[in-house]
Amino acid sequence: MNHSLSRTLNEIKPLDKEAMEMARSRQNELTKPKGSLGRLEELSINIAGIKGKMVTGLEHKAIVTMAADHGIVAEGVTLYPQEVTRQMVFNFLNGGAAINVLGRLIGARIVVVDMGVMGGFEPYPDLICKMVDFGTRDMTRGPAMTRQQALDAIENGIEVVEAEIARGLDIVGTGDMGIGNTSASSAICAAVTGEPVEKVTGRGEGLDDEQLAHKVKVVQKALELNKPDSKDPIDVLSKVGGFEIGGLAGVMLGAAAHRVPVVIDGFISGAAALIAATLSPGLKDYLIAAHLSTENGHTVLLKYLGLTPLLSLEMRLGEGTGAALGMSIVEAAVKTLAEMATFSEAGVAKEKH
Amino acid sequence: MNHSLSRTLNEIKPLDKEAMEMARSRQNELTKPKGSLGRLEELSINIAGIKGKMVTGLEHKAIVTMAADHGIVAEGVTLYPQEVTRQMVFNFLNGGAAINVLGRLIGARIVVVDMGVMGGFEPYPDLICKMVDFGTRDMTRGPAMTRQQALDAIENGIEVVEAEIARGLDIVGTGDMGIGNTSASSAICAAVTGEPVEKVTGRGEGLDDEQLAHKVKVVQKALELNKPDSKDPIDVLSKVGGFEIGGLAGVMLGAAAHRVPVVIDGFISGAAALIAATLSPGLKDYLIAAHLSTENGHTVLLKYLGLTPLLSLEMRLGEGTGAALGMSIVEAAVKTLAEMATFSEAGVAKEKH
Repeated sequence: MNHSLSRTLNEIKPLDKEAMEMARSRQNELTKPKGSLGRLEELSINIAGIKGKMVTGLEHKAIVTMAADHGIVAEGVTLYPQEVTRQMVFNFLNGGAAINVLGRLIGARIVVVDMGVMGGFEPYPDLICKMVDFGTRDMTRGPAMTRQQALDAIENGIEVVEAEIARGLDIVGTGDMGIGNTSASSAICAAVTGEPVEKVTGRGEGLDDEQLAHKVKVVQKALELNKPDSKDPIDVLSKVGGFEIGGLAGVMLGAAAHRVPVVIDGFISGAAALIAATLSPGLKDYLIAAHLSTENGHTVLLKYLGLTPLLSLEMRLGEGTGAALGMSIVEAAVKTLAEMATFSEAGVAKEKH
Repeated sequence: MNHSLSRTLNEIKPLDKEAMEMARSRQNELTKPKGSLGRLEELSINIAGIKGKMVTGLEHKAIVTMAADHGIVAEGVTLYPQEVTRQMVFNFLNGGAAINVLGRLIGARIVVVDMGVMGGFEPYPDLICKMVDFGTRDMTRGPAMTRQQALDAIENGIEVVEAEIARGLDIVGTGDMGIGNTSASSAICAAVTGEPVEKVTGRGEGLDDEQLAHKVKVVQKALELNKPDSKDPIDVLSKVGGFEIGGLAGVMLGAAAHRVPVVIDGFISGAAALIAATLSPGLKDYLIAAHLSTENGHTVLLKYLGLTPLLSLEMRLGEGTGAALGMSIVEAAVKTLAEMATFSEAGVAKEKH
C-alpha cells in the first residue's frame, strides 16, 4: 500500500465521545422540548464528535466535484455521448451547472477536479488536474485500470482534500461527473455488497426498460470477467471502478483523517464510500448521507454502510447537488446547537415532572 | 361571512398554466438529464404557476410565527406550564429560539404575532398585536371561542400577511407557539378528516403512553360535547380550534390571494391548512408542505390535503422551524431554474435519440 494512503488510514480515529456528551447535554438545555429537533440534534452531536468540540458554525464549506471518463461507454450503456463529461467540466468552471447554483446558495466553493477525462485539459484557472489516465478502459474487456492507478486515484483524492483543508475547510461535500459512472458504481456496489446486479443497477440519466436490461448485462459481464475480490477494495476499484470514484474515496479518507465531516452525495459518491469504508471501517462515522437518489442501488449501499439519508427529493443528478442541500441541513444543526438560548438564559420554564 | 375574508376567498385564482409551461420547458433545456433534479423541478414549476411568471429568486422571505394560549391546558394534556407560551414569545423577540437561528441562516425575517396569549403584552418593538382574547376557553366545557372570534382570528391573519406583503414578501412560511395547541390541532384534524381521534393525536412535547391516552380522551370529549360541523370550517375552528390556528389559516389565504407561495410547517400549521383549504379549495395549490412531523396526525392531514412533504427529519418543534428548512429547498428550486445554463448556452450535447 502506498505511503500517504496508509498514513491516512492510521490517522482516522474514533469520534470524540466527550465532545458528543457535551453537545447532547447542551441540546437538552436548549429552549425546546427534548428531542424535538429530531435529526438536527443527532447531527449536531455527531459533528461535535467528529470535530472533538462544539463549533459555532461551518464557515468554510466546499464541494469537491471530480470528473472522469469511463471505457464502459463503448458498450452503449448511456444516453449522453462521452464528450458531455468534458463539456460539463467547462460548465462547472463557468458557473452554469446545478452544483454552481447550489454552491452559491449555501456559500460553498466548488472544487472542480479532472481525475481522468478523455483528451485531458489545457491548464485552466480553477481546474485542479489530478488525472490518472484518459478515462478508464472498457471493463467488459479487462480491468478498468491497473492496481497502481487505483491507488493513485485514491491518493490524488487525499491530496485534493488536504489542499482544501490548508485553505480552510470546516465541512466537505462530494460530487461527481462522468458519463458511464453509474455502471461502474453498480458494479462496485454488487461486488462489495454481494447483491445481484439487477438490484443495484438503475436508469442513470433516464434509460428505458430495454436499455436498462442491456446495462445490467454489461455490468454482469464486467463482473464475471474481472472477478473483483470483495474483501480487497483496491481490487474492486481497479477492476470495475472509475478514477473519480477512487478520487472521491480519497477525499473521504483524507477528510476523516483531519476530522472534517463529509457529506456524501448520491449513488456514485456512495460507491466511493463503499471503497473507502472497506479500507477504513472507522470512516463511516465521518460520513453524512445527504439524500436518497432515485438510482436504485443507492438504497442498497446506504443500508450496507448503515447510513440514513437526510433528504429524499427524487434527485439523481450527481455533481454534489444532493450534498449541497444536505450540507445546509448540517449547518442548520450546528447553528441551532450553537446559537439557541438555554432555558435559564431565556427564562423559560422546563417541563413539569 | 366578514368582508375581508370573502374578498380574499374571491381573489384566490388557479395557478398560471402558461407560466408553468414556460418553466417546464426551460427545465428541459437546462444542463442536466431531464427530471434529474426531481422535486426541485416540480417545485420550480409550481412557483412559476403561483407567481404567474418565472422569478430570479426569493429575496424577501418571512416566517410568520403566531402565538396563543389554550384553555384545554386545564385538562392536563401538556408537559409544559401555560406560561411557556408567553416566555417563548420573549425568546422569539430576543432572537434565542430555534426559529430565530434558522431564520438568520436562510435569510428570512421572523414575524412574531400575539394572537391571544394569556395576560397579553405591553407594546413591544417587533411584536405584532392581533390578539383576539386571552387564550381560548376549555373546549371540554364548551366552544373554544365564539364564531365571531374565529372569523376575527382569520381576518387578523389576513391583515398580518398583507402588511408583510406591503413590506416585500416573495414567499412566506407559517409557524406556531401555543402550549396545548397539538390538542386543538388533533380535534380539528379529527373533525375535518373524519379520522378517529386516536389516529390523529400524538405525544406533543413528549407525553408518555398514559398521558397520551388521557389526551385522546380529552380531545374525544371536546368533540362529543361541541359536535363541530365538518362542512363548516368556521364552526370547527370556533368549537375546537385556537387563535393562532385561525390566524395562520388567514395568513395562508391572504398570501394565496396575492400569489405568494406558502410553506407550511408541521401539525399545527397543517390544522390551519385544513381550515383554510376547506374555506377555499383552490388554496391547496399555493401550499408547500415543508416536512413530515413525528406528530402522528400530520401524515393523516397531509394525505387529506394531497400534499407531499419535502423533508422528513423527525422534527416536532413547531415555531416554523420545518418551514424555514423547507423554504431553503424551495429557494434552491427557484435558483436552479433561474441560474443554470441551458445546453446551447453551455455547449453541452443533449441526449442521443
